[in-house]
Amino acid sequence: MIYITRRERFNAAHRLYREDFSDEQNLEVFGKCSNPKWHGHNYELFVTVKGEINKETGFLVNLKQLSKVIREKVIVQLDHKNINLEVEFMRGKLASTENLAVGVWEELEQSVKSLGAELHCVKVTESENNFVEYFGT
Amino acid sequence: MIYITRRERFNAAHRLYREDFSDEQNLEVFGKCSNPKWHGHNYELFVTVKGEINKETGFLVNLKQLSKVIREKVIVQLDHKNINLEVEFMRGKLASTENLAVGVWEELEQSVKSLGAELHCVKVTESENNFVEYFGT
Amino acid sequence: MIYITRRERFNAAHRLYREDFSDEQNLEVFGKCSNPKWHGHNYELFVTVKGEINKETGFLVNLKQLSKVIREKVIVQLDHKNINLEVEFMRGKLASTENLAVGVWEELEQSVKSLGAELHCVKVTESENNFVEYFGT
Amino acid sequence: MIYITRRERFNAAHRLYREDFSDEQNLEVFGKCSNPKWHGHNYELFVTVKGEINKETGFLVNLKQLSKVIREKVIVQLDHKNINLEVEFMRGKLASTENLAVGVWEELEQSVKSLGAELHCVKVTESENNFVEYFGT
Amino acid sequence: MIYITRRERFNAAHRLYREDFSDEQNLEVFGKCSNPKWHGHNYELFVTVKGEINKETGFLVNLKQLSKVIREKVIVQLDHKNINLEVEFMRGKLASTENLAVGVWEELEQSVKSLGAELHCVKVTESENNFVEYFGT
Amino acid sequence: MIYITRRERFNAAHRLYREDFSDEQNLEVFGKCSNPKWHGHNYELFVTVKGEINKETGFLVNLKQLSKVIREKVIVQLDHKNINLEVEFMRGKLASTENLAVGVWEELEQSVKSLGAELHCVKVTESENNFVEYFGT
Repeated sequence: MIYITRRERFNAAHRLYREDFSDEQNLEVFGKCSNPKWHGHNYELFVTVKGEINKETGFLVNLKQLSKVIREKVIVQLDHKNINLEVEFMRGKLASTENLAVGVWEELEQSVKSLGAELHCVKVTESENNFVEYFGT
Repeated sequence: MIYITRRERFNAAHRLYREDFSDEQNLEVFGKCSNPKWHGHNYELFVTVKGEINKETGFLVNLKQLSKVIREKVIVQLDHKNINLEVEFMRGKLASTENLAVGVWEELEQSVKSLGAELHCVKVTESENNFVEYFGT
Repeated sequence: MIYITRRERFNAAHRLYREDFSDEQNLEVFGKCSNPKWHGHNYELFVTVKGEINKETGFLVNLKQLSKVIREKVIVQLDHKNINLEVEFMRGKLASTENLAVGVWEELEQSVKSLGAELHCVKVTESENNFVEYFGT
Repeated sequence: MIYITRRERFNAAHRLYREDFSDEQNLEVFGKCSNPKWHGHNYELFVTVKGEINKETGFLVNLKQLSKVIREKVIVQLDHKNINLEVEFMRGKLASTENLAVGVWEELEQSVKSLGAELHCVKVTESENNFVEYFGT
Repeated sequence: MIYITRRERFNAAHRLYREDFSDEQNLEVFGKCSNPKWHGHNYELFVTVKGEINKETGFLVNLKQLSKVIREKVIVQLDHKNINLEVEFMRGKLASTENLAVGVWEELEQSVKSLGAELHCVKVTESENNFVEYFGT
Repeated sequence: MIYITRRERFNAAHRLYREDFSDEQNLEVFGKCSNPKWHGHNYELFVTVKGEINKETGFLVNLKQLSKVIREKVIVQLDHKNINLEVEFMRGKLASTENLAVGVWEELEQSVKSLGAELHCVKVTESENNFVEYFGT
């Protein structure tokens, strides 16, 4: 079993808030991340897949194909977008890094399988001080 | 003459666009950075000041004071904010990294003088691939 | 189950040595890290906690609270301090990165529980070439 | 149980290709990595070992000894070398990062044991966007 | 006057040697960098251009266009290539980082002018410990 | 004229204080950096030299020789040392990053000349947020 990780990046706007809260309540719970006029991040996405090395190629997966899948399935939805307003798989969810990692996992799980590998970890880095990891369960 | 640099960070939303352009024209000129629903970045701000070493302290400036000035003058205006809508010193300007660097310079120039040093460079990093430097002229 | 990591930093002095050894013996076992006049590092501390996402907030834990706990419980003891002489939880222990990671775990374990999460990993980075991880057992 | 990681670096040339393929077939499968005139990388190697903290030293292993083992067993074979043509433990294998990680594991496993620890993970970083991890099974 | 920098990357093989030297002489002068079977690097290229901010766009230059010029003029020649054997603008020169920086400058100077800016600096990073800067004179 | 930079690193303890001040006065002026029991840093030192490219070698200077000079002249004095108590060229000076940069310049200036280049800049990084540059005048 070998593990290979591909990093992709996206820049997006978001806001942490609940619609059933007033701006004051949102500020109390979510702090400055609740700013109604949005803020944003340079997110980094690390996708780790696992499986056996293919003897014909020396690869677990072709990284160009893995990169293509990540871009087509998630980066195109997230890059230079508003996570709260424009990302289908985040609809109805709080735009936290935790929910983002779970959402990316769900978008990628099947496609990674079709490449002949298994999704192992989705890691989303929001800043140099914070990151979230999800292993699918 | 010695040069000392302090890094501060801010996360903000912005959009590159002209009000006198249609969304289509903005897309043509500014690409995906013109998204009407915003996107954002983890900006890094490097402020370099210069002057003589103070023999009493071994410092050019006290870095805690320099950090305080940068935070009070610019970070508080920019962090977790929308650069187009909420930042006084960017009002009426295109929210480009170039204009941001010039704007930060103008906000800081006098305050750095009052610390006994001279502002030398404002560097704003928008992503790992892009940064802007302004030296005041 | 989701994993979230917060990075905090501290700068400290330390020395690797045993009191029952002469300076020569310490030099032989611990090398230049045994310098009796101390040396120091910019340490990075990565604290990973795990648990379920809270549906009301989208968070596993509020990162501001997690950061506050880490600062109050360990950073305040370590930052700009001498690890051998001034850190209560390192008293009587060799000031190695290994012991530091275990010590930080013990300081944080209960407080993380009181935030509604479980401590998963304490990682201490001593230099760009060395780091230690402790998972509690 | 504690985990300690040492980073070492090496710069090497390589090429991804099969001898039984034509240049055109290699280009199709391996892309520009198949260039017959080689290309290269600044590889980073992270070796993680695990075990009990030695009460006499505060160490799991002496990092200077671990570094020495990694250098003597693998870096000397790889640094400023052609992975396809000059590295004994890669002979007859495709020069992929996956095979490199497995090869490094096999070179190090016994030597780490003789230091009194157990090899836990070999991580090889080929670029800022790609890395491979191998845990021995 | 504002300065903007774009980073691009390329992975290449090279060798430091003189054809009029024996392998032994090359080893003596160039060390392990003279390995006749090549080695390689992940190079980083930072291109800094300067000029006035365009009031219509807020830009000095459109970074997408600058990136395109750098890729078409130099990255396509260098990436996944052998610098000694395959790079037209390095023909007949020693494949040092110094010569590489000067060569990249000459490839880019006119194209940057046609974007309405002036080339200020070409910086080539060969490893985390070494980089070269060239300012055109 | 070409500029080449070599990075070296050192870990050291220091304290910011004046002997003619009480601990209370030192705390007031220098903050937690005045801790009488020391603290420390992973310093990074970037030495930039300038000159003409040697046509025989393609080098400005042989980086191995530059590295050797930096190590023998300054790193050996600073690494795993107490800057206030053990570093000859800092004797009688406040152990600030500013004074450190000037001190390193003076230690290196002649030796760089004897390599056939001119010292251009000494940059000392104390943390990810602070660095000092000195250009010799």
